Amino acid sequence: LPAGPDGRFQGRSSDVAIIGAPIDLGAGDRPGARYGPDAIRTAPYLSGELYHMEFQTEIFKYLSVVDAGNSPVPVASHDGAIANLRKFASTVVANTDRLVTLGGDNSIVLPVLEALAERHGPVALVHFDAHTDTWGADLPALTHATVIRRAVERGLLRHGHQIGIRGYGPPADVLQWGEENGLTCWNMEDIEESGLTEVIQVVCERVSGPAYLSIDIDVLDPAFAPGTGTPEPGGLTSRELLGAVRTLARHLDLVGMDVVEVSPPYDHADITATAANRCVMEFLAATAHRLRTSA
Amino acid sequence: LPAGPDGRFQGRSSDVAIIGAPIDLGAGDRPGARYGPDAIRTAPYLSGELYHMEFQTEIFKYLSVVDAGNSPVPVASHDGAIANLRKFASTVVANTDRLVTLGGDNSIVLPVLEALAERHGPVALVHFDAHTDTWGADLPALTHATVIRRAVERGLLRHGHQIGIRGYGPPADVLQWGEENGLTCWNMEDIEESGLTEVIQVVCERVSGPAYLSIDIDVLDPAFAPGTGTPEPGGLTSRELLGAVRTLARHLDLVGMDVVEVSPPYDHADITATAANRCVMEFLAATAHRLRTSA
Amino acid sequence: LPAGPDGRFQGRSSDVAIIGAPIDLGAGDRPGARYGPDAIRTAPYLSGELYHMEFQTEIFKYLSVVDAGNSPVPVASHDGAIANLRKFASTVVANTDRLVTLGGDNSIVLPVLEALAERHGPVALVHFDAHTDTWGADLPALTHATVIRRAVERGLLRHGHQIGIRGYGPPADVLQWGEENGLTCWNMEDIEESGLTEVIQVVCERVSGPAYLSIDIDVLDPAFAPGTGTPEPGGLTSRELLGAVRTLARHLDLVGMDVVEVSPPYDHADITATAANRCVMEFLAATAHRLRTSA
Amino acid sequence: LPAGPDGRFQGRSSDVAIIGAPIDLGAGDRPGARYGPDAIRTAPYLSGELYHMEFQTEIFKYLSVVDAGNSPVPVASHDGAIANLRKFASTVVANTDRLVTLGGDNSIVLPVLEALAERHGPVALVHFDAHTDTWGADLPALTHATVIRRAVERGLLRHGHQIGIRGYGPPADVLQWGEENGLTCWNMEDIEESGLTEVIQVVCERVSGPAYLSIDIDVLDPAFAPGTGTPEPGGLTSRELLGAVRTLARHLDLVGMDVVEVSPPYDHADITATAANRCVMEFLAATAHRLRTSA
Amino acid sequence: LPAGPDGRFQGRSSDVAIIGAPIDLGAGDRPGARYGPDAIRTAPYLSGELYHMEFQTEIFKYLSVVDAGNSPVPVASHDGAIANLRKFASTVVANTDRLVTLGGDNSIVLPVLEALAERHGPVALVHFDAHTDTWGADLPALTHATVIRRAVERGLLRHGHQIGIRGYGPPADVLQWGEENGLTCWNMEDIEESGLTEVIQVVCERVSGPAYLSIDIDVLDPAFAPGTGTPEPGGLTSRELLGAVRTLARHLDLVGMDVVEVSPPYDHADITATAANRCVMEFLAATAHRLRTSA
Amino acid sequence: LPAGPDGRFQGRSSDVAIIGAPIDLGAGDRPGARYGPDAIRTAPYLSGELYHMEFQTEIFKYLSVVDAGNSPVPVASHDGAIANLRKFASTVVANTDRLVTLGGDNSIVLPVLEALAERHGPVALVHFDAHTDTWGADLPALTHATVIRRAVERGLLRHGHQIGIRGYGPPADVLQWGEENGLTCWNMEDIEESGLTEVIQVVCERVSGPAYLSIDIDVLDPAFAPGTGTPEPGGLTSRELLGAVRTLARHLDLVGMDVVEVSPPYDHADITATAANRCVMEFLAATAHRLRTSA
Repeated sequence: LPAGPDGRFQGRSSDVAIIGAPIDLGAGDRPGARYGPDAIRTAPYLSGELYHMEFQTEIFKYLSVVDAGNSPVPVASHDGAIANLRKFASTVVANTDRLVTLGGDNSIVLPVLEALAERHGPVALVHFDAHTDTWGADLPALTHATVIRRAVERGLLRHGHQIGIRGYGPPADVLQWGEENGLTCWNMEDIEESGLTEVIQVVCERVSGPAYLSIDIDVLDPAFAPGTGTPEPGGLTSRELLGAVRTLARHLDLVGMDVVEVSPPYDHADITATAANRCVMEFLAATAHRLRTSA
Repeated sequence: LPAGPDGRFQGRSSDVAIIGAPIDLGAGDRPGARYGPDAIRTAPYLSGELYHMEFQTEIFKYLSVVDAGNSPVPVASHDGAIANLRKFASTVVANTDRLVTLGGDNSIVLPVLEALAERHGPVALVHFDAHTDTWGADLPALTHATVIRRAVERGLLRHGHQIGIRGYGPPADVLQWGEENGLTCWNMEDIEESGLTEVIQVVCERVSGPAYLSIDIDVLDPAFAPGTGTPEPGGLTSRELLGAVRTLARHLDLVGMDVVEVSPPYDHADITATAANRCVMEFLAATAHRLRTSA
Repeated sequence: LPAGPDGRFQGRSSDVAIIGAPIDLGAGDRPGARYGPDAIRTAPYLSGELYHMEFQTEIFKYLSVVDAGNSPVPVASHDGAIANLRKFASTVVANTDRLVTLGGDNSIVLPVLEALAERHGPVALVHFDAHTDTWGADLPALTHATVIRRAVERGLLRHGHQIGIRGYGPPADVLQWGEENGLTCWNMEDIEESGLTEVIQVVCERVSGPAYLSIDIDVLDPAFAPGTGTPEPGGLTSRELLGAVRTLARHLDLVGMDVVEVSPPYDHADITATAANRCVMEFLAATAHRLRTSA
Repeated sequence: LPAGPDGRFQGRSSDVAIIGAPIDLGAGDRPGARYGPDAIRTAPYLSGELYHMEFQTEIFKYLSVVDAGNSPVPVASHDGAIANLRKFASTVVANTDRLVTLGGDNSIVLPVLEALAERHGPVALVHFDAHTDTWGADLPALTHATVIRRAVERGLLRHGHQIGIRGYGPPADVLQWGEENGLTCWNMEDIEESGLTEVIQVVCERVSGPAYLSIDIDVLDPAFAPGTGTPEPGGLTSRELLGAVRTLARHLDLVGMDVVEVSPPYDHADITATAANRCVMEFLAATAHRLRTSA
Repeated sequence: LPAGPDGRFQGRSSDVAIIGAPIDLGAGDRPGARYGPDAIRTAPYLSGELYHMEFQTEIFKYLSVVDAGNSPVPVASHDGAIANLRKFASTVVANTDRLVTLGGDNSIVLPVLEALAERHGPVALVHFDAHTDTWGADLPALTHATVIRRAVERGLLRHGHQIGIRGYGPPADVLQWGEENGLTCWNMEDIEESGLTEVIQVVCERVSGPAYLSIDIDVLDPAFAPGTGTPEPGGLTSRELLGAVRTLARHLDLVGMDVVEVSPPYDHADITATAANRCVMEFLAATAHRLRTSA
Repeated sequence: LPAGPDGRFQGRSSDVAIIGAPIDLGAGDRPGARYGPDAIRTAPYLSGELYHMEFQTEIFKYLSVVDAGNSPVPVASHDGAIANLRKFASTVVANTDRLVTLGGDNSIVLPVLEALAERHGPVALVHFDAHTDTWGADLPALTHATVIRRAVERGLLRHGHQIGIRGYGPPADVLQWGEENGLTCWNMEDIEESGLTEVIQVVCERVSGPAYLSIDIDVLDPAFAPGTGTPEPGGLTSRELLGAVRTLARHLDLVGMDVVEVSPPYDHADITATAANRCVMEFLAATAHRLRTSA
């Protein structure tokens, strides 16, 4: 496993490996997610001591983390960028127990899921997003709006939970297709009714085996994440999202996670990148806690 | 009814008509609401399919919507701008069942209410705002801070509910004047205590007959709506507001609605304009649902 | 007491005095808090009438407020700036019942507490912050991350409550040091579990005697306060914070309060400065209410 | 003469008086010039010592300057704002030898010229602007695009030079009207051909008697002045403009000057406000030099 | 020729047609040029009267202009976007004497040149740019850095002049390739030495027959055009560029022109889009003047 | 010599070494220069090929460059930061022929000059700045406004040329002190009169022996460098400055150079950081050319 250019999350060995996917040619609106990985890495936090107060765990004492750097991206070819990432992710997955991918637009999740399937087989998906990303019945293209359909078509998912869905689509037939293919949709209306805590508890009960956590940062309300491609008002708070990540990473057997759709040119004072950074940190902290308490 | 310059919301005929009121000479602080109408129209959303998941309704299948364009505005004359809007709104109201007005500062609501009164008589008002806009006992001017008083004085309102009020005014005598004139004030303290859902339910029970929904975007906390003239911390979340619009538009007989005080020069990444856009979308969706289920 | 350069909060005499501490050499990241005092003073609000609707109190009818201006700050010397503030605060404290300090980075709280201790002795601290600011066991320096430890070391605090703590530190030994020295830590997890209202009620019960309220604006989520030095996602909403200030100022015997770490270069549309301004306003309103009802 | 709220330019007595005209209801695009006066006053510069190196003159040793504050502005009435300014300027003109007005949109120049005419009679105008502001043959309104025509119509100008004109208008008949009424137009093409230095020299030769210098900041290229209402590429550099102001103020008998159309919401890092501030400073320096050398 | 969605430049018939190419997948840095066409169209200018003072010509009296709208762009496929543009441009070129293309990144010039070659054969190129865009000897891809090489390879250019070149590349062999293929390179050093006016005069003398004017907005210094993908300090002023466009369009037989690489997310106060808009306006004005004086 | 964290300018060995001085506690206004070094390093440019077209030189073929990273900076102590830099610079100077320092505020130049004096003795200074930085006769503090006086006092300069001086100070006695101590002041008025090219030629003639080039980025007009602490209108263009650096670095025996006062929080679209980056690049290119042609 090649050493990454960024020493940020570097630890002793390789419980977790981090890669960047600086790709945004799969996004229809507000490009810029290509700068997401570096912005997420350099978002401000208290360096040195990294002690998680709830878990009472020194994160890097129980967890080895390697940053394997960014996948190479050619100019003007989305297919080429995706193919490179497919290879890069495979190499890294072979050398780590858990893969963290920093996007990039949402389309980068497909090659990551393919790389994980090589080692772990199809996974259960927990997907935070304002959109289901299951459009594209007619058109074969891989974009940030079709990526979950492509993953289903390729048999990469055992089943999935999509949380935070809102906005004006997809239409009924697409939603029905999702249900028929094992995707459970938790709209913001469901979350308003039950509370996110309860939704997450149900998800934890229903998911078993190797699982994958995918976070499109636009699941947050635009107030918390202005720096994204397709903002949709009425979303989660960062407090809700971070709590959910913490719970999921503590209870599920996550073999990978990602944060995608952070678009720095539309961010302000790095608040979106910082929220994304903390999603990764909560995953790391909960994983360290799992390793510590299971040891 | 003239065809609007913007095909955005254009449908087959005219259940709803949309007009823009690019006027901000009635605002005391942070001008720029003149650019609100176009910013609200072009806020990003998923075009093409517009399916409302909660209502399970394809919005434009059950609803004809026409965008009648912007009211003409002379330079340097607030009176002239208001007079033009008065005429323009009258023409449009004569040809549509429901009028949506995109502001503009809050003062533009007066000529709109006058135009609606011609056809529907005085209306019940549901008013989301950080401020009561009932100042102006001494001075006759129409501004964004006196508009509701002017509407009461001209007999345009049967009664009203003002939701989200906060800040350091108006003083006791002005509040008392409101109560004596049929305006019920729901402060943020009331909302904290009961929850917005319950407040809205009470409002729905108390309002009957032709009603009007007015949304000053500053009812949102500045985190959700930085692009406005008189931001006041401690406000609603976009999740609360959109839910309330959905419920009100489903249950009340709304003959018109507006969103005002979106000031793009103070916005960031269009989050304020997008929130305003979604207020209109929720109104359209709920109205489509009413038409579908009542058919 | 010298008259301040800014007539904003100026009243008849001196129930409350306001000073600015335009100092940010104690901050490690994102400087700019030196511009905080003036930004907080000029944040937009409805001038003239200042009537608090919940307390039904005309604030400046029951409260005399003087703005004593900004403490002088030499270039390139944090020690010099702190020494000047120490003297300036002492002079002001001798002439007012309650001191409001507008920061400035968090390190400015130490000389303020020293000045207050001269007159009131050690105080009880209620501290809103994302960070405990109790680092610095090894290094003697006064910075925005060590200020509370320094205050404890100098015997300026009887005991304290730290509310809103989150992030990845301080480590276990530092947290333990805090507990052993009378500091109770209310993490965001505690707040999620119990609700802030209940936490504040407990704090009110436990605190008696002269108390001091310190608000690092980064206790708010970055969505509500992007303009700060060390933003930490997952924080309070402005609605929660303002309600808490209102309750605390109504029930405790506050001899001083501050708002620190507002960094205007990182703010957008003044929303951070406005939130800070309202913290002061709620303190003033509740104090006026105390004076009115106790008279 | 009332003392101003801002001690900035305050000197011993009254060779020069400064007023602010925070009015922007006369502007058709990009409002915000109402915040111009305060932004120009607080633009950063080296305070304390104010020594002009070219003139070798300590400015405030030879010049008494008073800041008389801002003219009061009612909400929603351009006519009211202009009438107030008319009165305010008259009072100040009666007590000072030279009036400096900080705009505000360009329409505020008319009441200022009227106030000056009371004492000095019609003046010669030297006008830096991208636009001639001589539209409005058909419509009587006073706006930022008609102000010079209105001044001519009211007999306030002996003759004038308009420097920096560019863009796509006014049309031929309006330009001809200007020539027939004593207005000489120096387009950017003329300036490109001859150089601004030579143009200014010619202007100095042709102007005699009481003169008035009006600077619409949009005479600068938008690179130097992004914060303005109607930016027009291809303009002057700040170096050219400041040199021209220096020369004109040294050689002409200026009884007043203004800087208008600074719109802070569209500015970045205060560069437009700072350029405007320096136009005033160069006027003050050259005037001090005139007084020193003529004494 | 289909009527465009934007009536901006619409005239009676078709001396000039305008199209938008909202494509930026060919850009390596700072995406966002997909929003260039609409930003350039809506950049502020004095609408209604459009009289060119130097040419003494009412532009739209002598020139018919049609806006044919934007070329359709699929998500995630640069090849698809370029192919669509190729077809769209061909249709438009068949119906107009001169084609104006609003980019989009620089790669969009290739399909435009192909469409023009169908009707006019190979053209002479006058190319304003900080970069030669002749990289790509080894790799066949069409990007914004290889577009001129591709045009040469396909025989679309008779010869060319590249003006404003600077930065640290291309290397010697690439420069030599350009010279051998009829491309004359005018570096900023040449322009500093001779002045742009003289360079343009030489270019006018050397170019004859059907010519094409391509303007990468990054030929301007970043002060004048911050909103672009690959800014390079030390560039032209907008005054220089607009004068050059005026001269070239007056003297050459231009069958098309473009402005590319305007990236609105990186712009401030629309100054880059406005400069690009004026490049088009100067082309239109000079063309109107040619038609008027040759009639 | 330790390898730097940033491979940017890394070459084979050590003709030039680059260090960062992320220090801004010496600045009176607009802090943020602590982020200058990293912003200058990561400013966009064409990576890979770095061929200087005027010098016809592949820069890194003839020049070995090492980036030694940033000097460590303690929180809250300007003295500590300066002391650290003093040591760090000494170590690096011992191992390289030329030192490039990326600021940081202007005060960081003093320890750099001290480090250079150890090896090279007092140097000739060529100083681009809007300000002379020779204040501080009374106060001993090292700040960004006193740094050149301190350097003179400590005997670190043989003589100096200060280019681009403007604004309203320093006063006559300070200017005279400069002249008496070997500092020649070239005001913007001198540059307007003679042209910068001629001024630089004179400077080249007058300077001999080991020389040092110091560039305060505020020598540029704020249009070209908005991201700086004390912007002063009427400055150089980036074209002028880069040409001057090129000439000086080609003709003088520079043993070091710096770029200081880049403040990223006040920058837009990185234009200031990019201009600073290019100052370093021109120095490197000219030095490579010197080595190539002298070999």
